[in-house]
Amino acid sequence: MMEVSEAVAAVLREASAFEPHAISLLDALGLVLAEDVRADADSPPFDKSLVDGFAVRLADCVASLPVIETVAAGQVPTRSLDRPAAIQIMTGAPLPVGAEAVVPVELTSEQIGASGGVHVSIPIKVASWKLDTNILRRGASTKLGDLVVAAGSELRPQELGALAECGLARVTARRRPRVAVLATGDELVPVEQAPGPGQIRNSNETMLCAQLLRACAEPVPLGIARDERAHLRERIDIGLQSDVLVLSGGVSMGEKDLVPSELAAAGVRQVFHKANVKPGKPIWFGVLDRRPNSRTLVFGLPGNPVSSLVCFELFVRPALRRMMGVSSAESVAVKARLTAPHTTKGERPTYQPARLEWQSDGPIVTAIPWVGSSDLRATVAANSMALFPVGDQTYEAGSVIEVIAW
Amino acid sequence: MMEVSEAVAAVLREASAFEPHAISLLDALGLVLAEDVRADADSPPFDKSLVDGFAVRLADCVASLPVIETVAAGQVPTRSLDRPAAIQIMTGAPLPVGAEAVVPVELTSEQIGASGGVHVSIPIKVASWKLDTNILRRGASTKLGDLVVAAGSELRPQELGALAECGLARVTARRRPRVAVLATGDELVPVEQAPGPGQIRNSNETMLCAQLLRACAEPVPLGIARDERAHLRERIDIGLQSDVLVLSGGVSMGEKDLVPSELAAAGVRQVFHKANVKPGKPIWFGVLDRRPNSRTLVFGLPGNPVSSLVCFELFVRPALRRMMGVSSAESVAVKARLTAPHTTKGERPTYQPARLEWQSDGPIVTAIPWVGSSDLRATVAANSMALFPVGDQTYEAGSVIEVIAW
Repeated sequence: MMEVSEAVAAVLREASAFEPHAISLLDALGLVLAEDVRADADSPPFDKSLVDGFAVRLADCVASLPVIETVAAGQVPTRSLDRPAAIQIMTGAPLPVGAEAVVPVELTSEQIGASGGVHVSIPIKVASWKLDTNILRRGASTKLGDLVVAAGSELRPQELGALAECGLARVTARRRPRVAVLATGDELVPVEQAPGPGQIRNSNETMLCAQLLRACAEPVPLGIARDERAHLRERIDIGLQSDVLVLSGGVSMGEKDLVPSELAAAGVRQVFHKANVKPGKPIWFGVLDRRPNSRTLVFGLPGNPVSSLVCFELFVRPALRRMMGVSSAESVAVKARLTAPHTTKGERPTYQPARLEWQSDGPIVTAIPWVGSSDLRATVAANSMALFPVGDQTYEAGSVIEVIAW
Repeated sequence: MMEVSEAVAAVLREASAFEPHAISLLDALGLVLAEDVRADADSPPFDKSLVDGFAVRLADCVASLPVIETVAAGQVPTRSLDRPAAIQIMTGAPLPVGAEAVVPVELTSEQIGASGGVHVSIPIKVASWKLDTNILRRGASTKLGDLVVAAGSELRPQELGALAECGLARVTARRRPRVAVLATGDELVPVEQAPGPGQIRNSNETMLCAQLLRACAEPVPLGIARDERAHLRERIDIGLQSDVLVLSGGVSMGEKDLVPSELAAAGVRQVFHKANVKPGKPIWFGVLDRRPNSRTLVFGLPGNPVSSLVCFELFVRPALRRMMGVSSAESVAVKARLTAPHTTKGERPTYQPARLEWQSDGPIVTAIPWVGSSDLRATVAANSMALFPVGDQTYEAGSVIEVIAW
């Protein structure tokens, strides 16, 4: 039986990053950029004003100045400051040649000069201002050719803004994995149906689809497969058309646990079955090579909801990250202090629902009481899983343990 | 001029939570539940087996036992254990009356008994097992009527799973705010167009739409409004049909800054114009009462991209949270230690792009160098904004400052 770290490594050996595609900017939110993007121009692309006001030469600011032009944003100045004069300018507009500062409009007053033209009065103190006050020079933030967003970056709102600034309406990124979700088991009924004797509702499909959406994948819900070979096989074959097929249930030791054998019949090569983990020991993982460079990863998650939740985070999530091109695909554990004593009776390493809180003196974690892998309500109070190694042990409050945030 | 805290309070006075609606489960991911949901049945709904194996009475486990029935998941037992016997049972299946433990199949062996029936051999140690080993009793995790998910909870994958378990295909939640995004300014060209002299690309629309998606809102991009009254007014009137209208640009002191006057002409009541903040001082906020219980909040964000980004997080985001029913709508600042010395020359409280990292001994923060509010590239290295109060000051490395994560 594999340890979790071995099982994750086995999953990641089979998963590979998708080929980069052109994806429209907003659709790429949350995806990973596949190529370095460099500035296609200086930013700002011209010397520009940071305020609404009057562009001047500093030495001229000892008297009122004639206003020889007005430049709005989107316009370009036609005059230059080669003699004592002011050019009215709006925030973001290109500066006239010769400008040394922009005097904010609220510091000035305008009047009609003797010759009938508009003049602006400027406070005398401006003459001693630093050169380039309220001016942003061309290329001050980015120069043509500078790296703006590096390959491997997650595309957040600010990256998308920066890429739009570079003129990219589409970016080269790795697409969302399409992930089929298939719950199996004769005991399952759809959510909207009242369970009969011995039946339970199919809550895993909704939960797994939501986990996939949070992971930026595209869920393809396939409903419930009955514990009947022909029906299960037909559903499996549909699921195998996606990048990943996630099944829940049907992987234990029961006589009705048909999933491994039907996957084998469908040509899926088993990589491992069972891992030394609680919850989730019966987890199954395999691969179908559909054609060169096109494979489907298949995860058979145990059917109990907490097992499904935990195994998704432990095993499926790293595979999705790898496909999407995230540089470190493994889940990262943080070390956190236990808020209360905790006793384990672990025949297997246990990933227990827990609440992780970021405090100013470091993270703290509270293990959430649970009655086992069917206790989904315990996870409602949780935002993470705390790892307790194998063995009977009592941890004092303040003990430092590993936690993986969901 | 309002301080940031006053301005946020003014925004939140005008924003109110939407009426609850029935929303299908997966569409509600990220939204906030509007009513307490209680269990509609015990969970598990029957005494169930945690393993594949044989249900037995402990005292009977001193010899091989006749297997009198097999119960798969989804089936119900028809026999009870009222004499020495075993009933084969699958994980998750309902236990027969009288069962005291389930012996995992891998600890047993089956053979044909003298009378021709199937018998199972069980290790003698089982007789000393604790009552209910490998059994989860009815209601062990949740009892009928127990609170499963409380009103006000964010709907994450595990909440959706727990609600599905309760039979809710639709949940009562507050819907996503529809938010129109309108960039203004003659200097703007669409992303795919090469800027001419004095022009820049409209990167704010993409960035703000992405920020809205991250905030679980529904963006309605309205393109670019020219600095021309009739055209701007037509675009504003379309935007005012949404729950929120976010404009960028056109709120400074320039002659072409038509946004406040055109909003007033459209009937939008100004709540404030300008806040004591850098970047973002020209921010404008107002309200249109369309009909009883239906209003549009209007934010005029400054056009420089970092101003837009920061003002969205400072002012728009709390309003969205309030509409969606999040109990604490205000952004929460964390205290973090500066990784390097930092000098401010602040005429206004400054929210500087920063990188916040969660370390095992507490959060640390690094201010990202920037050349001002047009420097979107600085935000690509950032994941937060660090607050530096007004005044010229040098902070030593290790100084504790406030940071708001994006």
